[in-house]
Amino acid sequence: MNPTLEIFSQGEEVVTGQTVDTNAAWLSERVVAMGFNVTRHTAVGDKLEDLVALLREISVRADCCICTGGLGPTSDDLTAEAVAQAFDLRLEFDALAFEQIKRFFTLRNRNMPESNRKQAMFPKGAERIDNAWGTAPGFALQAGRCWFAFMPGVPLEMRHLFLEFVQPALASRFILRPGKLIAIKTLGMGESAIQEIISTIEIPAQVQLGFRASPDDVQTKLFFPYDYPEAAISSLASAIAAALGDHVFAVDGLGQASGDLVFTVDQLMTAGKYTLAVAETASQGLLAAKCVGLPWLLETRYEQSLQKLGQKLGITINTDNLQATAQAAAKEIKRTGDADFVLVQLYAGDVQTFHDKDQAIILYNVLLAGDGFHQAIHSVAGPIKRKQNQAALLALDLLRRYLQHKEL
Amino acid sequence: MNPTLEIFSQGEEVVTGQTVDTNAAWLSERVVAMGFNVTRHTAVGDKLEDLVALLREISVRADCCICTGGLGPTSDDLTAEAVAQAFDLRLEFDALAFEQIKRFFTLRNRNMPESNRKQAMFPKGAERIDNAWGTAPGFALQAGRCWFAFMPGVPLEMRHLFLEFVQPALASRFILRPGKLIAIKTLGMGESAIQEIISTIEIPAQVQLGFRASPDDVQTKLFFPYDYPEAAISSLASAIAAALGDHVFAVDGLGQASGDLVFTVDQLMTAGKYTLAVAETASQGLLAAKCVGLPWLLETRYEQSLQKLGQKLGITINTDNLQATAQAAAKEIKRTGDADFVLVQLYAGDVQTFHDKDQAIILYNVLLAGDGFHQAIHSVAGPIKRKQNQAALLALDLLRRYLQHKEL
Repeated sequence: MNPTLEIFSQGEEVVTGQTVDTNAAWLSERVVAMGFNVTRHTAVGDKLEDLVALLREISVRADCCICTGGLGPTSDDLTAEAVAQAFDLRLEFDALAFEQIKRFFTLRNRNMPESNRKQAMFPKGAERIDNAWGTAPGFALQAGRCWFAFMPGVPLEMRHLFLEFVQPALASRFILRPGKLIAIKTLGMGESAIQEIISTIEIPAQVQLGFRASPDDVQTKLFFPYDYPEAAISSLASAIAAALGDHVFAVDGLGQASGDLVFTVDQLMTAGKYTLAVAETASQGLLAAKCVGLPWLLETRYEQSLQKLGQKLGITINTDNLQATAQAAAKEIKRTGDADFVLVQLYAGDVQTFHDKDQAIILYNVLLAGDGFHQAIHSVAGPIKRKQNQAALLALDLLRRYLQHKEL
Repeated sequence: MNPTLEIFSQGEEVVTGQTVDTNAAWLSERVVAMGFNVTRHTAVGDKLEDLVALLREISVRADCCICTGGLGPTSDDLTAEAVAQAFDLRLEFDALAFEQIKRFFTLRNRNMPESNRKQAMFPKGAERIDNAWGTAPGFALQAGRCWFAFMPGVPLEMRHLFLEFVQPALASRFILRPGKLIAIKTLGMGESAIQEIISTIEIPAQVQLGFRASPDDVQTKLFFPYDYPEAAISSLASAIAAALGDHVFAVDGLGQASGDLVFTVDQLMTAGKYTLAVAETASQGLLAAKCVGLPWLLETRYEQSLQKLGQKLGITINTDNLQATAQAAAKEIKRTGDADFVLVQLYAGDVQTFHDKDQAIILYNVLLAGDGFHQAIHSVAGPIKRKQNQAALLALDLLRRYLQHKEL
């Protein structure tokens, strides 16, 4: 059984929503990869009794707790005091810590305010965590069942202290058996459709199956316990990826670098030394924007009026046959430009349809490659920003499928 | 005494750090503004016994709890079941909710998978929260001391449900004495510069001053206690806004609808019945993408190569005088198009400079309006996505300043 770990964030700015708590996610990702079982995140403000109560709760509930925030010099920084009160410990002055804090100011030609003295007071028995990046040293101690590590909340300082002190301390204190996470990333298929498709594949009871839908993909996640055979991991992942077919644009966790759809397209375009020109409508610049700085994207254009696009390209617009219109546009863009591939995206529906979350637009994507036209038609509904994002992704995905499979 | 409120986020993706919990901060900000005292955020994973224990804890500790996540169709979505178990309630099938879920699929021409049926099961006595933005309805109920509202974790759906159902329900259920928050939104000026400029203005001790820097703006926040005189609020806010000059693009909390920069520009363009054409370089489509669906944006284009842009427009490119080049491009776009205004954005620096977070690019923005050219030059540094975003905002902001002040 993997040891349990909780994350505890202290600060009024977190509970009042002034700050998004990115520390909790950053820490969790790292300790999960080490083999901890993260059971809870908690954030509380700057009230002493809340802090004391929470520390006591955690000390009987978890094997380990990583805490951030509340180590500053001001009166609302109460962590050390709360720890002392929760576990009935005296606060002791640490002369070496005090020297380090003073030195931090001296190095910056500043006088140390008297209030910083408080940062050198630690609960008796605590181990100090030196902080070379700021004035607040951290500390660690065992209380009840739980080993606590306290770090400052400033992300930059916290990350250094974690990597250099806390992570090695965790590795030497706990017997860890990290599992393995595989994430199969797809586009153009919903969570429940995926679940139905893979329901025919037998997933052993020790393997945890999960899904995560985001605006940019749906991830099917497999979490394998420690010591699960590598061959079995890759054969199960392959079976699921095969069932999901060419909806899969990347698989995380099998050793190859992987990222979002743009990452996959960038790898394929770079490998083939290809270039691309685009005409966008529903995505309205977002396709190009997603590819910022990538040298293979030569140009994009957006015209709100289809008639105007026809005028500028010198082609005939046939609103009853958007596919043929998109093909004509692609041909003309190819003729006047230098790109190997041309992607043209048109859609049926007026401004009102586009804005109405309950109405779908029909997207006509056409890719002109060396071997001719390839196309995909999609229905996309939802709020306008979702339609826009899906339009950008689905057009790019037509290119990805072509490059990956050279057949559609 | 203001009622206490806790935020509870459910999901393995949150506790394992796969997802940063932005919902908690978004919700906290809103309920704090309403007058709640937010005491705790907690996130737990998909383990039934953890959920049940947490729900019971909260039901005796807080007056109100807002919960997100765990309402999906899959087997790891356990919220309704956990509520039923925690408070000893039966799960009941809600025929109307079921019809709505089915309708969601029908509208999108998809078959409803059997697994979605589960989303129509609610604990007995719960009030349903209809969800027009996704398949997962929410629900609300009183348990012990605490009124719970459960919403899906998808931020877009959650925000709609909160604003349309939960917020009004909270307002009618609790006696609240909210303070008043004024946020002065600026672009093109850092936090410490703002702090220095307003240091000459006297801010009474009861008024809390704060700053929040995001990729899209810097907000100077003033929090006034309940019953603070309206006249004093608006005179302090006006004094600060005046000191920050035309960097201010919106002020939140003074009664007028306000939003992001695009919102302000949209209001001004719509009021004047103006239209716009754009040529982007560093923002690479993002300026247009930010204006998705707004009818006054007629066209945008992006050419990676400045020479190619010159070729297509039939103008001479002078890389030693990007301002003159941008003016020539704007003139040509104006000549061949129908837009009232033309915005052209060029930048000095190669692909490497653009990618290097330690190097700045120099942006040349030119606006061609009825009364001639207006321009702005900016230096933008940081990671490529920051440069891209700033480039989009600063170009739009040139248009905003022109429309607001008709002088630059």
